[in-house]
Amino acid sequence: MLKSSLARGIFTLAIGVVIWFCPMPDGLDPKAWHIFAIAVATIVGFILTPLPMGAMAIAGLTVAALTKTLSIGEALSGFGSTAIWLIVCAFLFARGFSNTGLGRRLAFLIMRAIGSSSLKLGYALAITDLILSPATPSSAARAGGILFPIVRGLCTAFDSEPGPSARKIGAYLMQLVYQIEGVVCAMFMTSMAGNPLMVELAAKTLNIELSWGQWLLASCLPGMVAMIAVPYILYLFYPPELKKTPEAPLYAAAELEKMGPMSLSEKLLSLIFICALILWCTSLNATLVAFMAVVAMLATRVLEWKEMTSETGAWDTLIWMGGLITLADMMSRKGFIPWFSKMIAASMSGIDWTYALVALILIYMYSHYAFASLTAHIGAMYAAFIAVAAAAGTPPYLAALAMAFTANICLSLTTYSGSPGPIYFGAGYVPQSTWWKLGFYFSIVNIVIWVGLGAVWWKVVGMW
Amino acid sequence: MLKSSLARGIFTLAIGVVIWFCPMPDGLDPKAWHIFAIAVATIVGFILTPLPMGAMAIAGLTVAALTKTLSIGEALSGFGSTAIWLIVCAFLFARGFSNTGLGRRLAFLIMRAIGSSSLKLGYALAITDLILSPATPSSAARAGGILFPIVRGLCTAFDSEPGPSARKIGAYLMQLVYQIEGVVCAMFMTSMAGNPLMVELAAKTLNIELSWGQWLLASCLPGMVAMIAVPYILYLFYPPELKKTPEAPLYAAAELEKMGPMSLSEKLLSLIFICALILWCTSLNATLVAFMAVVAMLATRVLEWKEMTSETGAWDTLIWMGGLITLADMMSRKGFIPWFSKMIAASMSGIDWTYALVALILIYMYSHYAFASLTAHIGAMYAAFIAVAAAAGTPPYLAALAMAFTANICLSLTTYSGSPGPIYFGAGYVPQSTWWKLGFYFSIVNIVIWVGLGAVWWKVVGMW
Repeated sequence: MLKSSLARGIFTLAIGVVIWFCPMPDGLDPKAWHIFAIAVATIVGFILTPLPMGAMAIAGLTVAALTKTLSIGEALSGFGSTAIWLIVCAFLFARGFSNTGLGRRLAFLIMRAIGSSSLKLGYALAITDLILSPATPSSAARAGGILFPIVRGLCTAFDSEPGPSARKIGAYLMQLVYQIEGVVCAMFMTSMAGNPLMVELAAKTLNIELSWGQWLLASCLPGMVAMIAVPYILYLFYPPELKKTPEAPLYAAAELEKMGPMSLSEKLLSLIFICALILWCTSLNATLVAFMAVVAMLATRVLEWKEMTSETGAWDTLIWMGGLITLADMMSRKGFIPWFSKMIAASMSGIDWTYALVALILIYMYSHYAFASLTAHIGAMYAAFIAVAAAAGTPPYLAALAMAFTANICLSLTTYSGSPGPIYFGAGYVPQSTWWKLGFYFSIVNIVIWVGLGAVWWKVVGMW
Repeated sequence: MLKSSLARGIFTLAIGVVIWFCPMPDGLDPKAWHIFAIAVATIVGFILTPLPMGAMAIAGLTVAALTKTLSIGEALSGFGSTAIWLIVCAFLFARGFSNTGLGRRLAFLIMRAIGSSSLKLGYALAITDLILSPATPSSAARAGGILFPIVRGLCTAFDSEPGPSARKIGAYLMQLVYQIEGVVCAMFMTSMAGNPLMVELAAKTLNIELSWGQWLLASCLPGMVAMIAVPYILYLFYPPELKKTPEAPLYAAAELEKMGPMSLSEKLLSLIFICALILWCTSLNATLVAFMAVVAMLATRVLEWKEMTSETGAWDTLIWMGGLITLADMMSRKGFIPWFSKMIAASMSGIDWTYALVALILIYMYSHYAFASLTAHIGAMYAAFIAVAAAAGTPPYLAALAMAFTANICLSLTTYSGSPGPIYFGAGYVPQSTWWKLGFYFSIVNIVIWVGLGAVWWKVVGMW
């Protein structure tokens, strides 16, 4: 293990060194080229992880400062970025949902109301996931932390265990939550850690602004269609044996009974959550709204400060994403991205941008077979891909949105394509070959809905 | 508790509101006045802690952004400050010392070498504390985490327990470590979390630069004198009954035996530590050196990334100190500090600056009776006090240094004046009245050494 991670470390370093010493293109500031070398090595490090992502980010920044490619102030500038703190706050918000039990309660309430058939039960789980998502930027926290125990409990309640009884209902529900997860990730700017990162990258690369509300405007129609279509399509092509589930509402009612009445913390959190949702749709800065929600949670003691400082996911993300944002920002500021875009644009003259965009989308989507994290994939490819698309003539908003949603829906592909994958696959209900087949089908369904229908919708609402 | 913390919260809020709506001085930008109101309320919140400091900092920034006193970008700017990341890295460094056991080993090695009398044992502990300090910015981690278990073990080894046998040696050692702690905190820029904060505040308020090496140049002479004087004075005025301690080196040898040979991690950490010390004395940026050390620790697996993200002290400090630095910075940038300094300077014309400086130092020192944290005290008063001193005509470096060391040595005063206090007092060896009396004596000893002798020394080396 150490030996192999050492090898991966040396490889990562070598890539950086080779690029650094490559003959530099004419007319480019050496610093622009050097920051590109450091960024590529850091991103290769994110993918090969000789060290965890956070450690790679610190290493990248350190090299940048040590070689005087960046001043120490520039190297740290990403840590003051609004995207970073939006995500940190959302992690803290999510902690509130799991600590107070509000997430679980919500799931059972919806299940009790509409869970009387397998299909409806699927929708109940999808809706729960959707409701939690604006304040939960981690699909691991949402699908893994809150929903998984409930789904697993349901399977047991229906006597559907891994093995012969898996297809009774367990396999359907497990695959459903996983497939709906990609849709839910795409829905809100705050429902996946990589989304604000993409907004920031789009701002820095294409100089366009996307607010929380604009993201929702773009996602709402394709998102609703996908929310309706995905469970139904799965029900047709991978049906559960059990169709009626009158026990589910009873099970949910029993669990709710056990939980007792809503605690004060849960009520306060609901109120804070609703206020945050409303404010996120206004013109207030999304990070500011998230800060307000965090202050409200602290002031009302829904969450204690100690619980916040021990939310390691937030600090991990702060560091690797802060490092990445700095590097991406500096590649633009030092002149690498402008030079690169101009070069690509020149080489693409004469090619229709629609072909270029479609090709880029397909490449992005299916290159996710090689990634185990949506955000790592975004860090590696998003900025370059939208730069190329725009250079080929794609309207900037169309390029940014189409690629942003593609970067979420590629979650469907494999058992490892995002953090909930290993959890739901590991439960043992769906064989790997079935998973990959379904994953591929849904990648097509989602591209048609999100990019095809989406592009039309964004045109209708005047976003390009 | 909730009611009383609610009352404190309302009081904190009220202070901010009252200042906000006070008639504004002529010629001042309203934003300058408003940021002053927010900063005062936040600092009052740091002292009264209706919520923990980190929560107060977030609340302050949120109010600043919500009222458009600061843009959201400005509000987050402190989180990219080099002072903050120096401290975060130092926290991670300290974690290495306690995780690998290197800190303990060092203490026992020194004790084995020179611990044969009570006085020498005292010096052995003082030297250990001093050696650990450049990489341990938290007196709680150093005096509490590493030294306290050793001191307590020694007391037991000498049959000196709280009660009749306390004065045998326990009371002396407990008080010694506590009193030397203030000296050690003052010694390096990285030995106390508040030190880089003061450097940053001095830069923002008086526009002067202090590097890691310059700090050491300023502290080395008074620091060495205090390191020699404090254990000896304590030995004279609060002597242990036991004078010879031939058992101590044996005890240390036995503990070292138990620990076995140095592990690879310990050896690597020693190497990294020595390199960092050397580099800190060069002109390289101190934060960059700290980042290099962190990368080296991660690359050599001295510390795992997971251990870093669970270092809650680092994240706590990141947030409250980031908030405070933002507010202090913005008070300068928006024009409050310049206006305030000019006003004070006008009102002080004719007064000799030496009187002004001495008065300010004494006020700062003894106002620490009202504080339970060096850093909270610094946040509340340091910037204003050096601004006033400079406005009265004190040379800026003299003002910044004299006040900076005063801000460390006021640790001596009470049982609660810093985080190691409750630990060492709580051990039960030294009665409260004795503690306060000794604390007052040492405050005078330290002022004479650090400010009196210090001022001469800084003149000699040309710092003012």
